Amino acid sequence: MGRTHTNGYKRVGDFFPDLQFRPVLQAVCTRSPDKVKAFANQWGYASTETDWKEMIKRNDIDAIDICTPNDTHAEIAIAAAQAGKMILCEKPLARTLQEALQMSEAVDKAGVKNTVWYNYRRMPAVTLAKQIVDSGKLGRIFHYRANFLQDWTINANLPQGGEALWRLDVDAAGSGVTGDLLAHCIDTAIWLNGPIKDVSAVTETFIKERVHQLTGKVQKVGIDDACIFHCHFTNGSLGLFESTRYARGHKALYTFEINGEHASVRWDLHDLNRLEFFDHADESIVRGWRTIHVTDGDHPFMNKWWVPGLSIGYEHSFVHQVADFLKSLETGEPCSPTFKDALETQKVCQAVIESANSKSWKNIDIY
Amino acid sequence: MGRTHTNGYKRVGDFFPDLQFRPVLQAVCTRSPDKVKAFANQWGYASTETDWKEMIKRNDIDAIDICTPNDTHAEIAIAAAQAGKMILCEKPLARTLQEALQMSEAVDKAGVKNTVWYNYRRMPAVTLAKQIVDSGKLGRIFHYRANFLQDWTINANLPQGGEALWRLDVDAAGSGVTGDLLAHCIDTAIWLNGPIKDVSAVTETFIKERVHQLTGKVQKVGIDDACIFHCHFTNGSLGLFESTRYARGHKALYTFEINGEHASVRWDLHDLNRLEFFDHADESIVRGWRTIHVTDGDHPFMNKWWVPGLSIGYEHSFVHQVADFLKSLETGEPCSPTFKDALETQKVCQAVIESANSKSWKNIDIY
Amino acid sequence: MGRTHTNGYKRVGDFFPDLQFRPVLQAVCTRSPDKVKAFANQWGYASTETDWKEMIKRNDIDAIDICTPNDTHAEIAIAAAQAGKMILCEKPLARTLQEALQMSEAVDKAGVKNTVWYNYRRMPAVTLAKQIVDSGKLGRIFHYRANFLQDWTINANLPQGGEALWRLDVDAAGSGVTGDLLAHCIDTAIWLNGPIKDVSAVTETFIKERVHQLTGKVQKVGIDDACIFHCHFTNGSLGLFESTRYARGHKALYTFEINGEHASVRWDLHDLNRLEFFDHADESIVRGWRTIHVTDGDHPFMNKWWVPGLSIGYEHSFVHQVADFLKSLETGEPCSPTFKDALETQKVCQAVIESANSKSWKNIDIY
Amino acid sequence: MGRTHTNGYKRVGDFFPDLQFRPVLQAVCTRSPDKVKAFANQWGYASTETDWKEMIKRNDIDAIDICTPNDTHAEIAIAAAQAGKMILCEKPLARTLQEALQMSEAVDKAGVKNTVWYNYRRMPAVTLAKQIVDSGKLGRIFHYRANFLQDWTINANLPQGGEALWRLDVDAAGSGVTGDLLAHCIDTAIWLNGPIKDVSAVTETFIKERVHQLTGKVQKVGIDDACIFHCHFTNGSLGLFESTRYARGHKALYTFEINGEHASVRWDLHDLNRLEFFDHADESIVRGWRTIHVTDGDHPFMNKWWVPGLSIGYEHSFVHQVADFLKSLETGEPCSPTFKDALETQKVCQAVIESANSKSWKNIDIY
Repeated sequence: MGRTHTNGYKRVGDFFPDLQFRPVLQAVCTRSPDKVKAFANQWGYASTETDWKEMIKRNDIDAIDICTPNDTHAEIAIAAAQAGKMILCEKPLARTLQEALQMSEAVDKAGVKNTVWYNYRRMPAVTLAKQIVDSGKLGRIFHYRANFLQDWTINANLPQGGEALWRLDVDAAGSGVTGDLLAHCIDTAIWLNGPIKDVSAVTETFIKERVHQLTGKVQKVGIDDACIFHCHFTNGSLGLFESTRYARGHKALYTFEINGEHASVRWDLHDLNRLEFFDHADESIVRGWRTIHVTDGDHPFMNKWWVPGLSIGYEHSFVHQVADFLKSLETGEPCSPTFKDALETQKVCQAVIESANSKSWKNIDIY
Repeated sequence: MGRTHTNGYKRVGDFFPDLQFRPVLQAVCTRSPDKVKAFANQWGYASTETDWKEMIKRNDIDAIDICTPNDTHAEIAIAAAQAGKMILCEKPLARTLQEALQMSEAVDKAGVKNTVWYNYRRMPAVTLAKQIVDSGKLGRIFHYRANFLQDWTINANLPQGGEALWRLDVDAAGSGVTGDLLAHCIDTAIWLNGPIKDVSAVTETFIKERVHQLTGKVQKVGIDDACIFHCHFTNGSLGLFESTRYARGHKALYTFEINGEHASVRWDLHDLNRLEFFDHADESIVRGWRTIHVTDGDHPFMNKWWVPGLSIGYEHSFVHQVADFLKSLETGEPCSPTFKDALETQKVCQAVIESANSKSWKNIDIY
Repeated sequence: MGRTHTNGYKRVGDFFPDLQFRPVLQAVCTRSPDKVKAFANQWGYASTETDWKEMIKRNDIDAIDICTPNDTHAEIAIAAAQAGKMILCEKPLARTLQEALQMSEAVDKAGVKNTVWYNYRRMPAVTLAKQIVDSGKLGRIFHYRANFLQDWTINANLPQGGEALWRLDVDAAGSGVTGDLLAHCIDTAIWLNGPIKDVSAVTETFIKERVHQLTGKVQKVGIDDACIFHCHFTNGSLGLFESTRYARGHKALYTFEINGEHASVRWDLHDLNRLEFFDHADESIVRGWRTIHVTDGDHPFMNKWWVPGLSIGYEHSFVHQVADFLKSLETGEPCSPTFKDALETQKVCQAVIESANSKSWKNIDIY
Repeated sequence: MGRTHTNGYKRVGDFFPDLQFRPVLQAVCTRSPDKVKAFANQWGYASTETDWKEMIKRNDIDAIDICTPNDTHAEIAIAAAQAGKMILCEKPLARTLQEALQMSEAVDKAGVKNTVWYNYRRMPAVTLAKQIVDSGKLGRIFHYRANFLQDWTINANLPQGGEALWRLDVDAAGSGVTGDLLAHCIDTAIWLNGPIKDVSAVTETFIKERVHQLTGKVQKVGIDDACIFHCHFTNGSLGLFESTRYARGHKALYTFEINGEHASVRWDLHDLNRLEFFDHADESIVRGWRTIHVTDGDHPFMNKWWVPGLSIGYEHSFVHQVADFLKSLETGEPCSPTFKDALETQKVCQAVIESANSKSWKNIDIY
C-alpha cells in the first residue's frame, strides 16, 4: 500500500493544481535498511528511517501515513497523535474495536487531522452513486447488498504469516476477510445507506492449517476465509454482505447494489469506471438498466483527468483522497472517513465476528 | 401456469417424436363455467369440469396436473393419489411441511407416478451446469449463492388476495417469496450441491397492510416480502440465498453461482440461454469467465430445437419436463423432482421461516 | 424451416385466440415418400404429397408455404399464384432479381395474399426498435450498421450441396451469405431506415474448392463466404453491412445499430429479448446505454406470452408472423414484407453482388 | 496531449525502477507566455520557451516531444532531426503522406531515435492480443474489423478551428476522423495483422458548414465526419473499418476483433482492462467467449502495477511507451512504432481519402 499512497502524494499536484497545499515526501520508514533505501530512491523520498518512533520525533514531519500490518496501527497512531502529527491510516483502522476506540480517542484528544484510507469512496462511480442516493432519486430503500470475492488463497500450500502473507495470520491481521474486505463493503454501505442496526453472521475457515512463513511449522489458521452476514439498517432496509477468498474466478470482485422504491444503482470494482442505474421513472417501453461510463467532465473528479470515454484506474481513488485531505487543511473540515467514522465500521466488524462465534444476532448499539 | 403446462403437453410430440407416449388433453377444470369453456376452446381440451373432484372420478383420465393456488395442492393431490392417478404438481409442493409430508406419503402409498414442476432444472443451461458439476470439474465446493429478485409488489396500492393476487395472501400462498421464489433456488441448489444442513434466516414485510381483493378491507400482510438466509451444505460449502419482490429493476432475476476449487459456474434467468463458466485449468494469460451460448446440438435438450445460436425461451423447460415425465413412463424410473425430492426443499423452506421467526439457526435434520 | 413454419401454424391459436382464422395443416409435401410420411405423422398434417404440383392442384388447399431451397422458389410461387393460392415464401425471395421480379409480378397479377418470411421483423425487441425509430426519438439518422456472423463453414472438409448443405452450392442457393444472411440485415434495415441508394461491396470465398455432396467430386465453390458493403441510405445516413460464415466464435450473431442525432438503438440475436437504447435526453450524469428486457406486457407481442422477465425464443417470431398474416386476412391489409417489399431487398442483394464483381459502386435505382 | 505525455515521463521512474535512463523535464514550450508558465509550474518543468525553434537550439535538451496540432508536426520534426534530437511525435505522424515521407527521411538521415505515440499498442489487453496472435493460436486469419466511434461533434453549433477545436479544421488537422481516429485503428491492425493491400472507402461530412472559431465566419467544413472502408490484408483476410464522431452514445468506442480459423480476440477501449477471447479448441459443451481481466502479474506490463483485479487506466499506455522508449536507448533497438512504421498507416490513410474521393479501390503499393 506504500506505493499507492506515495503515488497519490506525487500525482496530486499535477492533476489538482488549485490546492493550496502540496505534500512533500520528507521521509519513509520501514524496518529493513536496504529496503527503505531502495524505496526512497525509487519514489524520491528525501530521507529514511528504520524505526517509526524516530519518524514521530522529527520536527520536519507534519503527517504520518500508516500503511503497516494491522497489529501496529494502534501503537503508531496513538504515538503520532500524542506528538501532534496529522494521521492518514490504512484500513481497517485496527484489529479490534478496543484498539480502534483508543485510536479514535487519541486523535480527538490531540485534535489532529485524521483520515482512514477507505479509498473506494472516491472512485468516481462510487462517489456518483452517493450523489444519486443523496439526491433522493431512489426513494425509500429496501435492499442493500455487497460482496467482495477473491480467489487467491485457495491453494492449500500457501503459507501464512511473514511479510507477504501477514493477512493470513490472525495475530497480525486481527481477522481474515472481515477486516480486509468486508470492512470496505461496510464503510461504503454506511456512507451510502446509513447506520447498521444489527447483524447475523457466519464465518468459515476452509483450510484449517497452514505452514507459518516465519516459524516453518504447520499451525492452525485463525482467520476467517469467508464471512457472510445479513443485517437491518436503521432506515429499515435489509442488508446482505458476503466476502471470501475462495470464490474461484473472482480476483477482486467488490460489488454493491442498492434497491430503492423508485430507482436502483449497482457497481463492480472489476469495471470501476461504470455505474449501473435503473430508473423506474423512465418511459415504460424503453426502461432498463443503464450503464453509465463515468468518465465525463460533470462526473465526480473526472474534470481533472481525460476526455469522455477514457478510463482511469484503481490508484486514482487514492489521488482523490489525498486531494480531499489537502482541501480539508484549507477548509478546516474533516476529511471523511475520519477515525470516528471508521469506528462505526469497526463496530460492525466486531459484531459480525461475535455473531458468527455465538451463532446469534448482535445489536450494534451495545458497542 | 395452466398455459405453460398445457403448452408443454401440446408441443412435446412435435419436438420429441421418439417418445412412446403422447399426452391427450382430455379435460380441464376450473371453478368458473365460463372460464373453463373459454380455456378448453382456446387450447383444445376435449371436455371440461368445474369441480376437481369430478375430474378425479373420471376413468378416462390417467394423470392430474395441479396448477391451483397452494392452499389446494394437498387436498387435490391426496385425493388424486388415492384414486390411482399420476400427479404433476405445481411448486411449491404445499404451504407447509406438514401438508407436504401427507402428500408425499399419499403418493408413496398409492404407488403413483409423480413429479413437481420445478421447471428450472430443465433449462438447458441449468441442466448443463448439473452436468459440469457432476463431472467433477469444480472440485471441492466452497460457495453456493442464489437469488430471485423481482419488483412487482413495490406499489403500496396493490391489493392482496383474489384470483390474480393470491400470492400476496398468506392463507392461499402459505408464505411469500420463500415458497414462491426461494423454493426454486433451493430446489436447484439441492440438486446441484446436495443437502442443506442448517439455516439462519431473516424475513421482512415492507408493506404492512394492503386492501384485500375479496373483502375490500385493509388487512395485515402475512407474507414475507423478502427473505435472506445463509446456510451450510452437508458437503461443507457455505450457501447464501436471497429473494425479494422489492428489488427495483429486476423482473425475474433468478441467478445462481457455484464456486469450486478448480472452476465456477453461474446462470441468470434473464439470459437463460447463457451459462457462465470459469476454469482455472485454462492457460493463465487467457483465463477468464466464458459465456456459453447453450444452443448447440450437444447441449442438453438442444438437439430437439434449432441450429446453434438460436435461442429458446422460458416455456421450453416445461416441454422438457413433460418429455422426461413421458420417458419415465417408458423406463419405470422416477421423474425428478418427485414429491419425495420436493419434500427436501419444503423442509428447508420450513426451517427458513422458523429461523426468521425465532432469530436463530435451525437444523434441517429435525424435520 | 418446415419445422419453424409448422410450429408457427400450430401455436398461433393457443396464444392468439382472438384471430378469426386458424390455420389447418391440410397437407405437407417433400420429395421423399418416407420423409414426408414421417414429418406428417410427427407434426399432425392431414395428408401428404411428394410432388408440389399436386399440392397446387388441390382444392382443399388455400395457402402454399414455400420452404424449399432457393432454386425452386420462383417456379413454385408462380404456379401457386396462377392457381390462386395465398403464398408464404421463405427468404430470400429468389436466387436472382430476375426471378424475384417474375414472382412479384405473378402474385400481383393473380391478386393473391403473399408474405416473405423475414421473421426478424417480428422479434419483439426488433419490433420495439421500429416503434422507437418511428416515434422520432432518434432524430436525424447518421449511421446504420448491421452484421450477421457465423462460423459453421470454416472446416475445409465440409462438402457442398445435397439436402443438408445446399446453402453452399451456388446453383441451389444463388449466392452465399448475401442471400442467406445479409438479406435479413437488408430487410430489417430498409424497414427501419428506409431505402438504400447505392452500395460498394466486396465478397470473398475463403475455401476455393469443396467436395460436392451429390457428385463426390471436388468442385469450385461458387458462393460468397463473406460479404461486406457500405452504402448510402436515401435519408442521408451511411450504412455498413457485413456477413460471413468464417467468424470463429459467432454462431448466429445478427446485430444492428442505428445512431441518430438524439438517440441510438442496437440489438443482437444472441440475446434476442434485449434491446439496447441510448437517449441523449437523459440527465447527463446518469446517461448511459439502457438494456431493455423486452418481456413486458406493453412490449410488442409480449402480452400474449408470459410475465415480465420471462424470455421467449427464436421460433416465436414465426408465430407472430402467422398471427399477422391471419390478421391481414381479416383486415384486407397486406402482411409485410410482401413479395413487393422483398423485391427491394433483392435489388440491394443484386447490386451488392454486382458491385463486388465489378469493384465499383452500384446505384439501386438502375434495377 | 501534453498532460498525458508529461505524466508518462513523471511516472515511469516510480513504476519502472530498473531502467537505466530517467527523463528530465527540462523545458516546455507553448506559444502563450502565460500558459507555458502555468503549465511548467503545475507539472514541474525546469524552464519554458514560447518558440519551438528555441527549444531545438538548446544544448541541454536531448529529446523533443511533439504534441502540437498536426499542421506543425512536419516542420518541427524535420528541424529537430536536423538538430540531432530524439523525437517522440504525437499521431498521426502528419497531415499528408507527403509530409510524413519527408519526416521519415529526415529522422533516417539524421539517425535519431524516434517513435510515434500510437499509445494503444501498449494497453496491456492490446499487447496481450498481439502475444496471442503471434503465438499462432488463431491460425489462418479471415477477418479483421475495427471501429472508433464518438459522438462529440453532433451539435451543429459547435464551431471549428482555434485552440480547442483545431481537429475540426481541415487546414490544421489534415483530415477528420481518418487521421484522428482511424489512424489508431489502422496502426493496431497493421501491427496485429500485417500490411493492408488495397482499400475501398466512403467518407461523409454531415454538418456542411460551421462558424470558424478564429474568423467568426461561417465556413465550409473540410474534414470527414465519418469514414468507412473495407480492405484486403496481404495475408488474405478481409478488413472492415469505421470511424465517426456522429455515433450517439459512444464516447470513445475503439474496438477491434480478429477472427481466425481456430480462435478470435476482441477488445473495447471503454473497458480497456478486458480482452475477449474465443478458443475453438475448448471442450465443445463449455466453449464460449472468455472475458479476460488483464490485471495479472503475467499479463503485459501488469507486474509493474497492482494486484490482480485492480484496473489501470488510459494514461498508463503512455507510461508504458515512455518505458519502452527508455529501454530502447539501452538496447539500441527501435521503439515501435517508429516514423517508418507510422508511414505505413499514413499510406493507408492517404489511400482511404483518395478512394473515398474517387469512389474507387486504391492499392497501397502505389504510394
